[in-house]
Amino acid sequence: ARTGDPEVVYGAGKTPEQVLALLRGLGVAHPDRAVLATRLGPQTQQLLATELPDADVDPVARTATYGPLPRPHGKVAVIAAGTSDLPVAGEASATIRAFGAGVEQIVDVGVAGLHRILGARERFADADALIVIAGMEGALPSVVGGLTGVPLVAVPTSVGYGASFGGLAALLGMLNSCAPGVVVTNIDNGFGAGVHAARIARTIGKATGR
Amino acid sequence: ARTGDPEVVYGAGKTPEQVLALLRGLGVAHPDRAVLATRLGPQTQQLLATELPDADVDPVARTATYGPLPRPHGKVAVIAAGTSDLPVAGEASATIRAFGAGVEQIVDVGVAGLHRILGARERFADADALIVIAGMEGALPSVVGGLTGVPLVAVPTSVGYGASFGGLAALLGMLNSCAPGVVVTNIDNGFGAGVHAARIARTIGKATGR
Amino acid sequence: ARTGDPEVVYGAGKTPEQVLALLRGLGVAHPDRAVLATRLGPQTQQLLATELPDADVDPVARTATYGPLPRPHGKVAVIAAGTSDLPVAGEASATIRAFGAGVEQIVDVGVAGLHRILGARERFADADALIVIAGMEGALPSVVGGLTGVPLVAVPTSVGYGASFGGLAALLGMLNSCAPGVVVTNIDNGFGAGVHAARIARTIGKATGR
Amino acid sequence: ARTGDPEVVYGAGKTPEQVLALLRGLGVAHPDRAVLATRLGPQTQQLLATELPDADVDPVARTATYGPLPRPHGKVAVIAAGTSDLPVAGEASATIRAFGAGVEQIVDVGVAGLHRILGARERFADADALIVIAGMEGALPSVVGGLTGVPLVAVPTSVGYGASFGGLAALLGMLNSCAPGVVVTNIDNGFGAGVHAARIARTIGKATGR
Amino acid sequence: ARTGDPEVVYGAGKTPEQVLALLRGLGVAHPDRAVLATRLGPQTQQLLATELPDADVDPVARTATYGPLPRPHGKVAVIAAGTSDLPVAGEASATIRAFGAGVEQIVDVGVAGLHRILGARERFADADALIVIAGMEGALPSVVGGLTGVPLVAVPTSVGYGASFGGLAALLGMLNSCAPGVVVTNIDNGFGAGVHAARIARTIGKATGR
Amino acid sequence: ARTGDPEVVYGAGKTPEQVLALLRGLGVAHPDRAVLATRLGPQTQQLLATELPDADVDPVARTATYGPLPRPHGKVAVIAAGTSDLPVAGEASATIRAFGAGVEQIVDVGVAGLHRILGARERFADADALIVIAGMEGALPSVVGGLTGVPLVAVPTSVGYGASFGGLAALLGMLNSCAPGVVVTNIDNGFGAGVHAARIARTIGKATGR
Amino acid sequence: ARTGDPEVVYGAGKTPEQVLALLRGLGVAHPDRAVLATRLGPQTQQLLATELPDADVDPVARTATYGPLPRPHGKVAVIAAGTSDLPVAGEASATIRAFGAGVEQIVDVGVAGLHRILGARERFADADALIVIAGMEGALPSVVGGLTGVPLVAVPTSVGYGASFGGLAALLGMLNSCAPGVVVTNIDNGFGAGVHAARIARTIGKATGR
Amino acid sequence: ARTGDPEVVYGAGKTPEQVLALLRGLGVAHPDRAVLATRLGPQTQQLLATELPDADVDPVARTATYGPLPRPHGKVAVIAAGTSDLPVAGEASATIRAFGAGVEQIVDVGVAGLHRILGARERFADADALIVIAGMEGALPSVVGGLTGVPLVAVPTSVGYGASFGGLAALLGMLNSCAPGVVVTNIDNGFGAGVHAARIARTIGKATGR
Ligand SMILES: Nc1ncnc2c1ncn2[C@@H]1O[C@H](COP(=O)(O)O)[C@@H](O)[C@H]1O
Ligand SMILES: Nc1ncnc2c1ncn2[C@@H]1O[C@H](COP(=O)(O)O)[C@@H](O)[C@H]1O
Ligand SMILES: Nc1ncnc2c1ncn2[C@@H]1O[C@H](COP(=O)(O)O)[C@@H](O)[C@H]1O
Ligand SMILES: Nc1ncnc2c1ncn2[C@@H]1O[C@H](COP(=O)(O)O)[C@@H](O)[C@H]1O
Ligand SMILES: [Mg+2]
Ligand SMILES: [Mg+2]
Ligand SMILES: [Mg+2]
Ligand SMILES: [Mg+2]
Ligand SMILES: [Mg+2]
Ligand SMILES: [Mg+2]
Ligand SMILES: [Mg+2]
Ligand SMILES: [Mg+2]
Repeated sequence: ARTGDPEVVYGAGKTPEQVLALLRGLGVAHPDRAVLATRLGPQTQQLLATELPDADVDPVARTATYGPLPRPHGKVAVIAAGTSDLPVAGEASATIRAFGAGVEQIVDVGVAGLHRILGARERFADADALIVIAGMEGALPSVVGGLTGVPLVAVPTSVGYGASFGGLAALLGMLNSCAPGVVVTNIDNGFGAGVHAARIARTIGKATGR
Repeated sequence: ARTGDPEVVYGAGKTPEQVLALLRGLGVAHPDRAVLATRLGPQTQQLLATELPDADVDPVARTATYGPLPRPHGKVAVIAAGTSDLPVAGEASATIRAFGAGVEQIVDVGVAGLHRILGARERFADADALIVIAGMEGALPSVVGGLTGVPLVAVPTSVGYGASFGGLAALLGMLNSCAPGVVVTNIDNGFGAGVHAARIARTIGKATGR
Repeated sequence: ARTGDPEVVYGAGKTPEQVLALLRGLGVAHPDRAVLATRLGPQTQQLLATELPDADVDPVARTATYGPLPRPHGKVAVIAAGTSDLPVAGEASATIRAFGAGVEQIVDVGVAGLHRILGARERFADADALIVIAGMEGALPSVVGGLTGVPLVAVPTSVGYGASFGGLAALLGMLNSCAPGVVVTNIDNGFGAGVHAARIARTIGKATGR
Repeated sequence: ARTGDPEVVYGAGKTPEQVLALLRGLGVAHPDRAVLATRLGPQTQQLLATELPDADVDPVARTATYGPLPRPHGKVAVIAAGTSDLPVAGEASATIRAFGAGVEQIVDVGVAGLHRILGARERFADADALIVIAGMEGALPSVVGGLTGVPLVAVPTSVGYGASFGGLAALLGMLNSCAPGVVVTNIDNGFGAGVHAARIARTIGKATGR
Repeated sequence: ARTGDPEVVYGAGKTPEQVLALLRGLGVAHPDRAVLATRLGPQTQQLLATELPDADVDPVARTATYGPLPRPHGKVAVIAAGTSDLPVAGEASATIRAFGAGVEQIVDVGVAGLHRILGARERFADADALIVIAGMEGALPSVVGGLTGVPLVAVPTSVGYGASFGGLAALLGMLNSCAPGVVVTNIDNGFGAGVHAARIARTIGKATGR
Repeated sequence: ARTGDPEVVYGAGKTPEQVLALLRGLGVAHPDRAVLATRLGPQTQQLLATELPDADVDPVARTATYGPLPRPHGKVAVIAAGTSDLPVAGEASATIRAFGAGVEQIVDVGVAGLHRILGARERFADADALIVIAGMEGALPSVVGGLTGVPLVAVPTSVGYGASFGGLAALLGMLNSCAPGVVVTNIDNGFGAGVHAARIARTIGKATGR
Repeated sequence: ARTGDPEVVYGAGKTPEQVLALLRGLGVAHPDRAVLATRLGPQTQQLLATELPDADVDPVARTATYGPLPRPHGKVAVIAAGTSDLPVAGEASATIRAFGAGVEQIVDVGVAGLHRILGARERFADADALIVIAGMEGALPSVVGGLTGVPLVAVPTSVGYGASFGGLAALLGMLNSCAPGVVVTNIDNGFGAGVHAARIARTIGKATGR
Repeated sequence: ARTGDPEVVYGAGKTPEQVLALLRGLGVAHPDRAVLATRLGPQTQQLLATELPDADVDPVARTATYGPLPRPHGKVAVIAAGTSDLPVAGEASATIRAFGAGVEQIVDVGVAGLHRILGARERFADADALIVIAGMEGALPSVVGGLTGVPLVAVPTSVGYGASFGGLAALLGMLNSCAPGVVVTNIDNGFGAGVHAARIARTIGKATGR
């Protein structure tokens, strides 16, 4: 892995036993740094809880972290509109920590409740990078991006029904954001957003001694 | 036409001469009330200016109104994000007037500038119906809808490029709005939004003596 | 919640226990007005029936109402083509009642049976707002919209197969309606249509003392 | 060509000179029956008017017929909602005549004006086949199909804007028609509908001596 | 029901008990003619077998016919490419019989085996109408349509995977058929094709005394 | 360039002067072998005719070849349904020649005329590779692929209107071909098909001494 | 079957018993050559293991081969990015062997690890045809195609989530490959790619005595 | 504007005179820092050249910069596959400079030519952020992202034809990139990528004294 980046196991399509074996093997090979596993189903989570009790399993984020986390540098604010977006926010947060940056998670701030966004403003104003997660119309990144000049990654989620088309509406909304500099990941891709944001934050954090 | 509704000429795909003849004929048949024409190209506008000087031609809205406007009842606030949305806002406004309601037009309020939206709040708080027009990610109706309980019609515009797909991104965003009660028209359909909103406003206005 | 609007719980993606707790909590916080819950699965409905016997659970609409309904003002006619559209009609009706307007439900009027639509005409002619629900080709709002000038909200449903693409055909049909002033919600969104229509009807109803 | 079917020239993508040469050549080869040409641009129409004065050029339908038409058997009613659908109605009518059936053209009957459809009812009740042409939401075939059991072909047109997507909305609407037995052609394909309907009508007409 | 047309029950989304009750009720109301039920799941089929032993249940077609079939007039040839298309062919055939026409079913003729199509040619040459059913690329109607001038209805099926997109590839292929006069139904809609074709065939059959 | 492959200039988006300069430069650099230029607009073709008279410009294929063609090995049969497909067939043929294989071009064989395909059969039976080009429903490759076991590349063309969606219908049809082993290129990509087929044919031709 | 091609049973949509009967029947009819079955579910695989122990069942590829394989001529290199693509690689490999060519399988070479691709280069440089399988962005064929002039077939897989749309992203990527001569099959169609590549390789192999 | 960000004029849909007036006005209001204008048509560029000779107009990038550029901090590498991508690369570069970071532009490195990418590697290894621009299959960001851990923004371009669907294929490819941490902008949005990357680079540059 690249300097500062952990090994990562993508759990989708793998059996619980395959994930367990991969985590064990990577843990032996790299005892000094964390291994991250994402997209873990309930059975994999259960097997890890039993067989790898040192692993840190997060049932909402559907992630596991195994081995010592790096010391965090810099800070990423992870902002999400609703409780349905929590799995994606959790995946992003676990990724950021494993990639060596700090996390501030701000949830329950939707665009139809401006005062809550304005109230949370000072919590993200001093972050080194922002991740803004939203389903439905995907409008939150535009509103947040209008309030700050911090580099911002938008993550559309597959929350919604009908003409949300599995997150497509939110994805298109974010790609067309009127706030300048908004960049976007695949639907539900908290991991990719976490990697991008952590790389920004840890570099700035190290350079500024935070 | 239904009580209170004017005759309307849809100019797209008609020659300047056809539009002129229709306006003249309807003016003769209904001298007591306005005729509305929409989607007029530059040549049609010019012909009307010359041959039907009494008609009120709006080059931005691409509309013409011919004959006496009804007395307005109630008020519709027409809110638009940017100058590129002005033709749609103009079409909506001309329609509202021809259908017998009053108009308050509020432009240049985008979601990436929350203070401007909050500053305009009292101008639309007492309207009987709202029309919110936006291109790109189509987020404005969600933000406005979070600030008020007035019936709100959202109009996506074809402004944008790339993954805006001619207004599809804005349309999908509005259909998935997280603000409850947002209803939507076809892309660029200021006319349809105007008809719906004017019918609401004029009924309320008449009932409350405004 | 905004004046006249109830608290609403969106049941999709919530466990039965979470929905029960939310209804109980909101009932305690707002004992004087109803709480509405939508998109309730069979297990949630069953839990509410047992644990919250005062709640009014509608298995077809998949809704629950808890607490005293407001006195209705004005009237919304809810028109649906077929029996498959009944869940959406029910969601709209429950929403309208919780938002303080009266409901007249008219079902089994499809566009391929004009006489039935014409026969139902006087039942919706005096409504303050209309909700027209249809799947398949989504033609019903155009036909109804041609018969009346009452503000009309169209709701496409996901009923159908093949090239109905989960309600997309009906959605596009309604967005392109040739009847002026037809506005549209997301597929199956009886809730959104109910909010919009109830707000219109209750304002008119109050102003006219109905 | 199959018994009873004329030679046909598809004009799109051909130069005026190519179309002229094809019509001349086929006229010489089959002096006893008509040749049909469709999708003719203005320049081709003009060249034919000058160089082939015996050809019957229809500028609205964009067709030309050259040579003696067959004696018509049976009758096809061609029904269209609006004037924008006239080119497609014309293409269908010219095709029906060239393929040996009679035509009754009924225009200006849209779904938002039920009385006009009901008023035209007896004009299509005794036809041997129906062609129903509509753009926008494509609802007309469902309404007509509910009034009659005559075999019905629906033709979506590319009339409309925004979410009509060049006729896609009408096409999907017609494919999902709730009237049983509605079959559909490609967008704007008056020719294909004409061939299908004429073959039905002329067989029935011959069998019943009409 | 229209003269010559049976009552039809659309089984999708109905419980076995609802279908049973509808068939019983319609059987009592119209003892002299057949009732057709389509899209019946295995449980509905089983209930009918037990409770309504006089009904004719077809497990491949997923249909039931209850009551005396009309005397058939004319003939429809139902042509299908592969065994996966048999349910749609069966639905079409059951519909044709219930609507009063005769059926000739020709299966296992795909476009990649021209000799089999050519070998079956005389079996469909004298039909009054053709139904051609195909999934995948939907090419069969073009090939058959090139061999005959009999009115032809094409039915795309949802057979296939990947870029077949649930029958969309076949649907688009058939809508763009290069054989003139091919008309199309919704994906898997054997019922609609059967209604259209039976109406043609029975009229011709009656007129010609077949 | 790879052994046996010529230099290629893609003309789309380049000025006539740029194309001329590139051809001249590559001609000087590689005087011993041909340079191929594709997608040349009329003005580029004219400039080449004047300024580079040794270049072989094909106005239908919109290609130019400059410098000595390699000796051909093996044979590719290029089969196209209609005259509208000729530009793509020409682009494929010019590419094959420049890449060192021989070409047999067979046009005017559509799926609605089986006898012509069967009549052309022996002209492509002994080819080393086939390119089959078709627009509209894209059915031709399935029919040809059913007649032969020669490696076959299918090229969809953008010919058609309405639901052909610029060649998408043909592309999907070909991707779902029921003839085994059919592989596909981008819409209108005669060049890509030519490269693939020429590489097959010239290898076989060299190995077998043809 | 065509000379050199085996009989093939497509298992999707067939019961285990049907597949068993087909393999048995074809094995009796053609005892001298292999029969290939693809898309076999677990139950079919189990039934074959018990009832047809001579069949060679591959649980990853989901294929079975029954009867003697032909002597292989030539070589196809099957290259896949990740372990999720192994079922498609297996289907391709089983097909190639049954169609009479040799296979070299190269896995775990993704575009984000260039050194591994470069390291595997000499393993595919002398192949007669290449099959390159990839999901997600489908970039691998472009990279491999830039390294070699061997005829290359790209197979998109349905691996991925969100905006991969079931393999559509990979399919579009491959159709637009900037490496010349890349041809494409349907999503997950290892069979089709295997047929095309085996036909190329076995002809070249025979001609060159390999 | 936010600290460090310039004023920006989006030229699309504005007349030359409007753009000139905006640049002049913003130049007067902010004489100490640059104003950036993007998407300028040829006529606007010409008017600026004449009337605002101090403005720096870039005809390839279609941008103008007016007023003193900020001192650059940090470095963004802008990498593009081909000459058709130069306008987007230019828009990104002009934006980066106006937003206060340095630019290193690397062009003509496509995925089908790995050695050129590898050769350019050290030019982007020490950048603070990367922008990778590509049309067609959009594979370049995955390849570059596999070679470096620098934060990377991918920009799809509308270069291509047929199934590239105006840049959609590249957009989907980039959203599904197998290289971790790749984030994406709208099609052709060099401006948005430039804002995001410049904000990263200038912060790191300032913190590290570059
Ligand atoms: N059926 C529905 N469809 C769409 N939105 C709904 C529906 N029911 C409730 N909502 C919205 O969901 C919000 C509550 O969401 P939650 O806090 O997740 O329970 C309400 O304020 C409504 O705006
Ligand atoms: N397989 C089918 N596909 C589409 N429509 C059908 C089908 N079977 C029946 N129908 C239609 O459904 C109607 C009956 O619907 P219902 O009253 O819900 O049983 C019939 O009159 C037919 O028009
Ligand atoms: N995995 C596959 N994908 C697509 N087509 C296949 C596949 N496997 C077999 N086939 C085709 O299916 C045919 C056999 O179909 P069937 O007669 O239904 O078993 C073969 O001749 C092949 O052309
Ligand atoms: N090329 C571009 N693509 C997308 N957005 C842009 C572009 N150039 C400028 N913008 C945005 O457009 C805004 C200015 O828009 P306007 O006020 O219409 O000139 C800027 O603040 C940017 O956010
Ligand atoms: Mg949101
Ligand atoms: Mg907006
Ligand atoms: Mg309907
Ligand atoms: Mg219509
Ligand atoms: Mg087929
Ligand atoms: Mg074709
Ligand atoms: Mg890949
Ligand atoms: Mg590229």
